[in-house]
Amino acid sequence: MGSSLWPPKVSMELHVKNREKLLASLRQHLSDSSRPLHGFVLLQGGEEQTRYDTDHLELFRQESFFAYLFGVTEPGFYGAIVRSDIATGDSLLFAPRLPSEYAVWLGKIKQLSYFKEHYMVSTTSFSDEIASVLQQHYQGAGKPLLFLLHGLNTDSNNFSKPAEFQGIDKFDKDLTTLHPILTECRVIKSKLEIALIQFANDISSEAHVEVMRKTKVGMKEYQLESIFLHHTYMYGGCRHCSYTCICATGENSAVLHYGHAAAPNDKTLEDGDMALFDMGAEYNFYGSDITCSFPAVLDAHNAVISSMKPGVNWVDMHILAEKVILESLKRGNILLGDVEDMMAARLGAVFMPHGLGHFLGIDTHDPGGYLQGLERRKEPGLKSLRTIRDLQEGMVITVEPGCYFIDALLLPAMNSPMTTKFLNQEAINRYKDFGGVRIESDVLVTAAGCYNMTKCPREIGEIEGVMAGAPWPAKNISTHARNGLEI
Amino acid sequence: MGSSLWPPKVSMELHVKNREKLLASLRQHLSDSSRPLHGFVLLQGGEEQTRYDTDHLELFRQESFFAYLFGVTEPGFYGAIVRSDIATGDSLLFAPRLPSEYAVWLGKIKQLSYFKEHYMVSTTSFSDEIASVLQQHYQGAGKPLLFLLHGLNTDSNNFSKPAEFQGIDKFDKDLTTLHPILTECRVIKSKLEIALIQFANDISSEAHVEVMRKTKVGMKEYQLESIFLHHTYMYGGCRHCSYTCICATGENSAVLHYGHAAAPNDKTLEDGDMALFDMGAEYNFYGSDITCSFPAVLDAHNAVISSMKPGVNWVDMHILAEKVILESLKRGNILLGDVEDMMAARLGAVFMPHGLGHFLGIDTHDPGGYLQGLERRKEPGLKSLRTIRDLQEGMVITVEPGCYFIDALLLPAMNSPMTTKFLNQEAINRYKDFGGVRIESDVLVTAAGCYNMTKCPREIGEIEGVMAGAPWPAKNISTHARNGLEI
Repeated sequence: MGSSLWPPKVSMELHVKNREKLLASLRQHLSDSSRPLHGFVLLQGGEEQTRYDTDHLELFRQESFFAYLFGVTEPGFYGAIVRSDIATGDSLLFAPRLPSEYAVWLGKIKQLSYFKEHYMVSTTSFSDEIASVLQQHYQGAGKPLLFLLHGLNTDSNNFSKPAEFQGIDKFDKDLTTLHPILTECRVIKSKLEIALIQFANDISSEAHVEVMRKTKVGMKEYQLESIFLHHTYMYGGCRHCSYTCICATGENSAVLHYGHAAAPNDKTLEDGDMALFDMGAEYNFYGSDITCSFPAVLDAHNAVISSMKPGVNWVDMHILAEKVILESLKRGNILLGDVEDMMAARLGAVFMPHGLGHFLGIDTHDPGGYLQGLERRKEPGLKSLRTIRDLQEGMVITVEPGCYFIDALLLPAMNSPMTTKFLNQEAINRYKDFGGVRIESDVLVTAAGCYNMTKCPREIGEIEGVMAGAPWPAKNISTHARNGLEI
Repeated sequence: MGSSLWPPKVSMELHVKNREKLLASLRQHLSDSSRPLHGFVLLQGGEEQTRYDTDHLELFRQESFFAYLFGVTEPGFYGAIVRSDIATGDSLLFAPRLPSEYAVWLGKIKQLSYFKEHYMVSTTSFSDEIASVLQQHYQGAGKPLLFLLHGLNTDSNNFSKPAEFQGIDKFDKDLTTLHPILTECRVIKSKLEIALIQFANDISSEAHVEVMRKTKVGMKEYQLESIFLHHTYMYGGCRHCSYTCICATGENSAVLHYGHAAAPNDKTLEDGDMALFDMGAEYNFYGSDITCSFPAVLDAHNAVISSMKPGVNWVDMHILAEKVILESLKRGNILLGDVEDMMAARLGAVFMPHGLGHFLGIDTHDPGGYLQGLERRKEPGLKSLRTIRDLQEGMVITVEPGCYFIDALLLPAMNSPMTTKFLNQEAINRYKDFGGVRIESDVLVTAAGCYNMTKCPREIGEIEGVMAGAPWPAKNISTHARNGLEI
């Protein structure tokens, strides 16, 4: 074991640039709508959580919008951006006032000046001073205006929680302007953001190769998860994963989100099992999301990536993937009849019930999939899409076609007059315990087309080679990791 | 790398016995207080949590009281114990009614009969049927009585949350009886519980040895954490740790709870650094809590374990540890004067500000440290004790004396007229960046004395040997793991 990678140093410039981008978008929006250019942006960072009634502390991970703007790893912070017509705007951090016992139990109490320098903000104060500090920055008459974060996450259907603090009643609140603008800032990635997603991809791709090398009949699925986690933490400094590892073999590979507490990667690998490993590490908040599997859906994966470029609509890419998969199932004599007719009957959703992919960044399901006014599609499969937008340069989106044999979907399809004629029931019954396959890469949309940030073995020959001990050409991987920005 | 251990099969008999124990205690309590022997015990298990506004699911870990009684690993359950004067009482599980999409995304929807068999309960129903099922079990007139869990956790000062469900207004509620009785059940461990804590100790001890073997100057602290996590998951099947790993070197070893998000085990190891590794894995809910460090406090650790037996008071053990540490600091010329005078001035708390140890089980800080009516001590050091009870056979308690050079405590002590005379300031300044040491074992109180469940190298010679590659006698470890119950 070992690695050619090393965790890159992260400059807080990344978050300075993110704040500048927000400020520019916000100004643009306000002047477009002829509103006055004053007010403060205020966000509240995450708090540490204890488990139920105990003093067991869960490992803290910053709230993603706050992480995007300020990069703060500690709990209990607030951050403000004080707009100004002249300069680029001041950024203010508010740190929690820690009790003196903190020094004994949790470490040196850092000075405000430390946070100012480390996080590259204009000033730092304590979080019990928010109201007075913001009032000092205010020049006008009446109550100053706060732009607070409140809006819908279209993946969870939850709303983000606007900041709360002592003295907030001394301010006017705007709860609608900030969320769509900040969300949209996160949709198009900067060079510094792309470099981090690339590193998360590089170390995770390498860890997938390590898993392929060590997979043996008789092992437990969670042992492969452990190998992945160890590789990304040991050599990549990735303490968090982007999501709970999915290490599915045999019929478990047909469970899209396998690996949670009620299905905890605990099957023993048997000879002939299909394997589907969906695992991605996170580095300095930015994630990766990679699935390796035997390459039955590789054609769909490759067809999509060949077609991606700015202006292409994501629903069309989903439909393209479905079509390639249905054609392949027809060639395999699993489906019968005309593929166009199958498409009209939405048969693709029986074998790929999830969407083709989603935005990726600080969240695995990065926000911004539905611009205000865009309606979700109603058809099976298409309704699961986490975005239906046209591609734009700077988006990072996963391409993850899959094909599964799921009883809960196949049985109704066999019984439906719409779809039963397409299904070769004898062949399908033979594949009943096959499970499923998925191939997932993280793809950056570029001006000319797109770039696949994920470097895993994909072709049957490549995978079999790596499993047999052949070196995997880490050349591309290390080049990307070392210079970070070159793509 | 490798291991002689393998995760043992866990029988749900463990939780059947835990329920029987609760029922016996509850009956005893009710007859002692001449109350009628009817009513239902009802607990609500934990729910899955998403992160902030996103659909990122945190890996679920069951609430500890619910885990104790029912052993259920899935979220969204309720459990009831229907007392009966004749037999041992029926146990009822209530499972969430899952939507049909669950089968596509999260796995096969298990039948109620599966849960009944797997968790060895009398009946299973859906959680929207709680009110009607309990009403069916009720024979008397008026509203049936529910014993709900509500009480203080003396480590966190949080209260446990009593069960809530649709139709609860059809029941009378008792919020005071259950918590102290159930807590006390958890204080004295059964043989089956001890076997699990022993396994968590065995795999964690072995992982500590693995860390000692691989520790090299130039590594990052978190790489040692990664080695520990990988070893306990890969070979022990331990997906959760009992607490966030503390991998402290150099002056960080003086930070008692180092390793959290604001101090994330990210220092590079330098030559001559003191090292303090406090890491413990959890297996089937039951934890371990082990600290390895250079053996400066080994005498205190050993003195306490030699004195532990039923009837001994834990405060006296804390004072014994303090005394041995102060004597050792006096021999090292760091302290000056009479040790009894130092004890009277509570000087021990300057070097060991935490308590000597705490109950361990399903929670790292297992509940029950303060029986109702027991008051916390007010003196420095003693006020940090998580229990002041007399030891009893079947308790599992950590013994973790430590000695730290913490500026935030040393500077005030140097300036206080009470303590300044004891402190050799010149010597202490030389140790300023030394950090701290802690040795922690998990100790079972037996009828005859006690048994140390933790098998790590402790003596200087042992540690240096293991670091140089000598085999660590795993003989004791594997014996205990294989037969589980033999101690």
